[in-house]
Amino acid sequence: MSTLPRPVDHAGLEVLTLAECVELLEECYVGRLAFVDRGEPAILPVNYRTHHGSIVFRTALGSKLDAAAVGRPAAFEVDGIDEAYHTGWSVLLKGTLVEVDDPGEITVLETLKLRPWATAVARPYWVRLVPTEVSGRRIP
Amino acid sequence: MSTLPRPVDHAGLEVLTLAECVELLEECYVGRLAFVDRGEPAILPVNYRTHHGSIVFRTALGSKLDAAAVGRPAAFEVDGIDEAYHTGWSVLLKGTLVEVDDPGEITVLETLKLRPWATAVARPYWVRLVPTEVSGRRIP
Repeated sequence: MSTLPRPVDHAGLEVLTLAECVELLEECYVGRLAFVDRGEPAILPVNYRTHHGSIVFRTALGSKLDAAAVGRPAAFEVDGIDEAYHTGWSVLLKGTLVEVDDPGEITVLETLKLRPWATAVARPYWVRLVPTEVSGRRIP
Repeated sequence: MSTLPRPVDHAGLEVLTLAECVELLEECYVGRLAFVDRGEPAILPVNYRTHHGSIVFRTALGSKLDAAAVGRPAAFEVDGIDEAYHTGWSVLLKGTLVEVDDPGEITVLETLKLRPWATAVARPYWVRLVPTEVSGRRIP
């Protein structure tokens, strides 16, 4: 690891490297997805996995997310916040949501052990957030 | 407390009452704010407090949030996720961000004991999210 001083952004937050961002994304299971629904921002918690440099998750056909967001830009955030110590980190992805419809690809995704937590409704469809921008910050 | 069965949404999630949403919002200190930045959704973790039925937090002048979002619609989400037990809840607010510029009001907000965690840059400005829609869900 480098011993150089870490870069700091205009707000005084430490800037994470891409490698650190990817590692944190791989360690987490739940993030928050933001998308634009009829011109207004919306957020949903999402149970996800990483796969080939993107974020994948399951959704139900016709869900609000599916209707509002697939094919459109979205943002995805994971964080680790320690309220007691007033410290934490966050990683933000920006990109576009695409539905995964290739059967071979779905077969691979099914091996990721990503099970929906809420099981009352089937979520057989996979969505991928293909990131075009990744950034992370840590409170020093 | 009522013993009626809880309402469930189309995705099989329990629908929280407004009172439950408000209670959960008051118990938390960190949420995620989604707003639209140059046509694309963005998310930031925000250290907040509740005040008179709205969400208030501090920001720096000229921050990305300030530039992109004040005066515009935004969404705010808090959640409590238990990854081990695959359960959790989330509360979503939708509304508009407004800057608080009344000195009397700021004096009141300063008593809320909301201190920025990242202290390298001053965050002397207060922003209020005035909700127009509140909803909450729990994984049963």
